[in-house]
Amino acid sequence: MPPDLPGAPALIGLDWGTTRLRVMLLDAAGNVIAIRESDEGIRRARGAFAETFAKAIAPWQAQHAGLPVYASGMITSRNGWVQTPYLPLPADAGALAAGLVRHTMPDATVIAFVPGLCDDRGTHPDVMRGEETEIVGHLAQNPQSPDDPARLLILPGTHTKWVETAQGRITRFRTFMTGELYAAMSRHSILGDLMPPHDEAAPCDREAFARGVTAAGTDGGDLLAKLFSARSLVLFERLAPAQIGDYLSGLLIGTEVAQARAAMGERGEIAGAASATACTIIGRGDLAARYAQACEAHGLVAQIAAPGAAGAGLAALHARAAQDSR
Amino acid sequence: MPPDLPGAPALIGLDWGTTRLRVMLLDAAGNVIAIRESDEGIRRARGAFAETFAKAIAPWQAQHAGLPVYASGMITSRNGWVQTPYLPLPADAGALAAGLVRHTMPDATVIAFVPGLCDDRGTHPDVMRGEETEIVGHLAQNPQSPDDPARLLILPGTHTKWVETAQGRITRFRTFMTGELYAAMSRHSILGDLMPPHDEAAPCDREAFARGVTAAGTDGGDLLAKLFSARSLVLFERLAPAQIGDYLSGLLIGTEVAQARAAMGERGEIAGAASATACTIIGRGDLAARYAQACEAHGLVAQIAAPGAAGAGLAALHARAAQDSR
Repeated sequence: MPPDLPGAPALIGLDWGTTRLRVMLLDAAGNVIAIRESDEGIRRARGAFAETFAKAIAPWQAQHAGLPVYASGMITSRNGWVQTPYLPLPADAGALAAGLVRHTMPDATVIAFVPGLCDDRGTHPDVMRGEETEIVGHLAQNPQSPDDPARLLILPGTHTKWVETAQGRITRFRTFMTGELYAAMSRHSILGDLMPPHDEAAPCDREAFARGVTAAGTDGGDLLAKLFSARSLVLFERLAPAQIGDYLSGLLIGTEVAQARAAMGERGEIAGAASATACTIIGRGDLAARYAQACEAHGLVAQIAAPGAAGAGLAALHARAAQDSR
Repeated sequence: MPPDLPGAPALIGLDWGTTRLRVMLLDAAGNVIAIRESDEGIRRARGAFAETFAKAIAPWQAQHAGLPVYASGMITSRNGWVQTPYLPLPADAGALAAGLVRHTMPDATVIAFVPGLCDDRGTHPDVMRGEETEIVGHLAQNPQSPDDPARLLILPGTHTKWVETAQGRITRFRTFMTGELYAAMSRHSILGDLMPPHDEAAPCDREAFARGVTAAGTDGGDLLAKLFSARSLVLFERLAPAQIGDYLSGLLIGTEVAQARAAMGERGEIAGAASATACTIIGRGDLAARYAQACEAHGLVAQIAAPGAAGAGLAALHARAAQDSR
């Protein structure tokens, strides 16, 4: 079998977040054999998790009965189905596999829920749920030996994570609320009022985005004043209304990159990566491309990781759990 | 007549913003004889400004026909009734009076619209409409002689203005989008989802606000990561859901104060006030008190100005225009 074709089904993986549910039939290496995606995230599925789960795996039930099931994401949070603890740092696949919380369904199907991670050494406690699985998957696909330097990973999203790994373990991370701020400001502020109706299919205006990144500056400061530039530049016809969204996106992501770099270098929040000149972005599509552009503008060589990290992570945790139980 | 009682009606003043309309019957010094306030801001009155104006002054029409009318605020913007230009800095009452744009109604009533101000010397153009009138009023009530040091004024609002005045002139200013960011994040983000239904009458939780100010730090940096603390502290039960709003308010206003102080000191954006150890807040109620608390926490002695700056400003511009036309 060519290496790019998946092997035999080994597990079912659930990547179950706030707004999306992805159910994957995976081989032992985490390659996707089949995938089903819906908007039945925990917000919509609330109170009917078992029913949503049963419906989601029903098409595979007859043929693949008895496969182990692994789940990660906000489904393991307080508002989710089965709550798992936050493990402290540093953490690796072994720690996460040891912390799996198993839930047995009436038909004897066992679902293993992945724990989250917490870093409580900074100015405030920081947490993740779901990203730890993607990181484990990325490290399974790109092993980090003890001699390798620390790596800097970025997982863009509503709450973007900047993560440091060393010796195959997650050693630091920091959450930035950039995506949520962009959504709130572009939909519910005077900036949103100035923006023409959004065309979801419109490509990113790279030049407007770059202007925003430049406006963010290199120190990440002064954001509250700089936000006003998205209005005043339009008022003075130096920015087109259709460009506000991508300019604002550049301003916010550029500020995030600058603030993350400062946190790395000055405060040692992501200490081992303080000297990082390269990073890997674990994410997809347009948002990953935006982060890559902003990182490059800040002198950080950015590589976008191959897709499939979540499935690879769940498979790696299954393999580790199976190994540990032997 | 005791000095605290207003004199004879001398003008009608309109403080006409995006969401509110205040119509004031003023004496020559700008003291308020009568006031009518409604939610007929320019957003609601759009397209029916003349009708809204006629209705608003109707009760005073018979008794005070022929009084000059002065208007300031967003009513002079592109989306308003009569657009006025932005004047450059430095600007004072004389420049603003010279820039008044007069509009004659069918019944011969003349409305003088106040110009806005623009500062295009910084990283992006900055503008104000309405605040210039309040500042002129404040300076009329509290004259600044040529020998007095530069003053630092703060006008809190959706778009808060930090302003420097010297020798009775507005010499610098800078807009911070803090209020708009607070509204968007508290209503349309996960932070808002975590907050209990808001009780408008509830007093500010000063301790939660102070914690937010402290969390903001002294350099104003790292806001995108610190915003996440409003969520993670709740998750770890170190902050009550009912405290999120005031904590977030403290975090944002504290960040603004720190960023404004940095802009003053390091970049000379508000140059003359770089050494300011005191400021005056032109604003009312709870929001002014919040800014005072945040300023004090940053070592800036804050005084809240007496109310009535807008009326005093319109009266001062009327007096100046009358003097200039003689």
